[in-house]
Amino acid sequence: MARVTQRRPVLRLSLDGEPRQRADRVAGEEPLEIRIGETSWSVTMRTPGDDFELAAGFLVSEGVLTRRDDVVEIGYGPGVNPDGTASYNVVDVRLAPGVRPPDPDRARQVYTSSSCGICGTASIDAVRQTSSFDVAADPMRVALGELLALPDRLRAAQRVFDTTGGTHAAGLFTIDDDGRAELVCVREDVGRHNAVDKVVGWAVREDRLPLSRTVLQVSGRASFELVQKAWMAGIPALAAVSAPSSLAVELAAEAGLLLAGFSRGRSLNVYAGGERVLTSA
Amino acid sequence: MARVTQRRPVLRLSLDGEPRQRADRVAGEEPLEIRIGETSWSVTMRTPGDDFELAAGFLVSEGVLTRRDDVVEIGYGPGVNPDGTASYNVVDVRLAPGVRPPDPDRARQVYTSSSCGICGTASIDAVRQTSSFDVAADPMRVALGELLALPDRLRAAQRVFDTTGGTHAAGLFTIDDDGRAELVCVREDVGRHNAVDKVVGWAVREDRLPLSRTVLQVSGRASFELVQKAWMAGIPALAAVSAPSSLAVELAAEAGLLLAGFSRGRSLNVYAGGERVLTSA
Repeated sequence: MARVTQRRPVLRLSLDGEPRQRADRVAGEEPLEIRIGETSWSVTMRTPGDDFELAAGFLVSEGVLTRRDDVVEIGYGPGVNPDGTASYNVVDVRLAPGVRPPDPDRARQVYTSSSCGICGTASIDAVRQTSSFDVAADPMRVALGELLALPDRLRAAQRVFDTTGGTHAAGLFTIDDDGRAELVCVREDVGRHNAVDKVVGWAVREDRLPLSRTVLQVSGRASFELVQKAWMAGIPALAAVSAPSSLAVELAAEAGLLLAGFSRGRSLNVYAGGERVLTSA
Repeated sequence: MARVTQRRPVLRLSLDGEPRQRADRVAGEEPLEIRIGETSWSVTMRTPGDDFELAAGFLVSEGVLTRRDDVVEIGYGPGVNPDGTASYNVVDVRLAPGVRPPDPDRARQVYTSSSCGICGTASIDAVRQTSSFDVAADPMRVALGELLALPDRLRAAQRVFDTTGGTHAAGLFTIDDDGRAELVCVREDVGRHNAVDKVVGWAVREDRLPLSRTVLQVSGRASFELVQKAWMAGIPALAAVSAPSSLAVELAAEAGLLLAGFSRGRSLNVYAGGERVLTSA
């Protein structure tokens, strides 16, 4: 069966001593095929584990799912390893009657509009037309001290990173009326998009969408696609340990999301939605 | 026109002082549509700049191009911004007669084989069947001290990262008979795959494929896809600043590539192809 981490021989070379051979753990990476009603839809390279959540979260991002009952069943499909054992690398999602499967041309649609072709503005328009949730109306406000603490709290929960140093992480925190944060879900993956999809998939399977009054903390950077995933799940805040891109900033501003970056201990940058941060000053 | 970096207002929040509003530069991110003979083939989010190289490198990874003459012309296609100006977000590649365009079902093919379905082993088999170059036969050996110096040499050349902190980088180094490295091409992008595609695209447009006697240094982690891109371009060594995945290690071992990771000043880990590193000890 596909494994979250795998042991590999490693040759440690140093300018200060003899080469040393030892065993080390690396993050597992295997292809996952997502099928919808037995039709192949997508293949992604992912760290095995939480595969049903990954598939469900991916379909939230694609605008297919918004609630638990949109899915009848998720299970492993066929697929075997060379030794004949099940590969657990195919997941089949059975949608409820009336739920429309994603459009095969969806990837292109996200980035284009018929009026002006392909550009950043069209990409933002396309997400706005697809999202079911109005995150701008979410009253969530988070205390600055809490927001600054999220990267460490996420890091402390990263089990796979501890042993491999090779996974991205996404953590979902609920925010109470006083702006305090509580960690409710952490997922790790070699792909940063997958880590977010796993968190969102966990939430839709718990029927928690829209994820109002939450902050999504990610271990890396903030791209357009991560802001899009947050918006599609109704998450009003995305916080990244490092930099955002130009289009991530624009999409967050359009959606009414808090977008924070470079969160480093005692200070951070806010690129959009600054009114959502409670500073005691 | 799409820009490499963009200026954005940023609110700096700190536990140690008042909020400060200032302008900051973020890495540009815009969609790019790659067309082949006017047929839409792929859309990727990328940092504008070196777009023709990105398109060419992508097609090397897809197994379509191996030499300069496989392409007749690359140019910007139609596409306008909301204000009517050209968006420069569509690139059209005209292939030479006899060069087969990529198979639309290619993404799935990379990860599967008809005999055993979808799994890591099948993914490796699929790349082996597609690559035109035998990197195992490349005699390239690199001195340990040189290999350890590559991350700093790459970092020193990262202009966009200097101003934004938001881009990945890939650097191609040629290696001489004494194992010494010379930097010949650096590219940056919000997407790490794009940075590598831009380097490979530069090389195929210079008709340098296969890229024998080179090392590709990347700023982040080493995934299956990055090793695949190296192999498809005939690069015998991939060095990453941080961790590789399990499938990256397996693919590198299969190809005969040197795969180094956690390159940190005076030591690094070798996961495959250790015989390619010259230790003076």
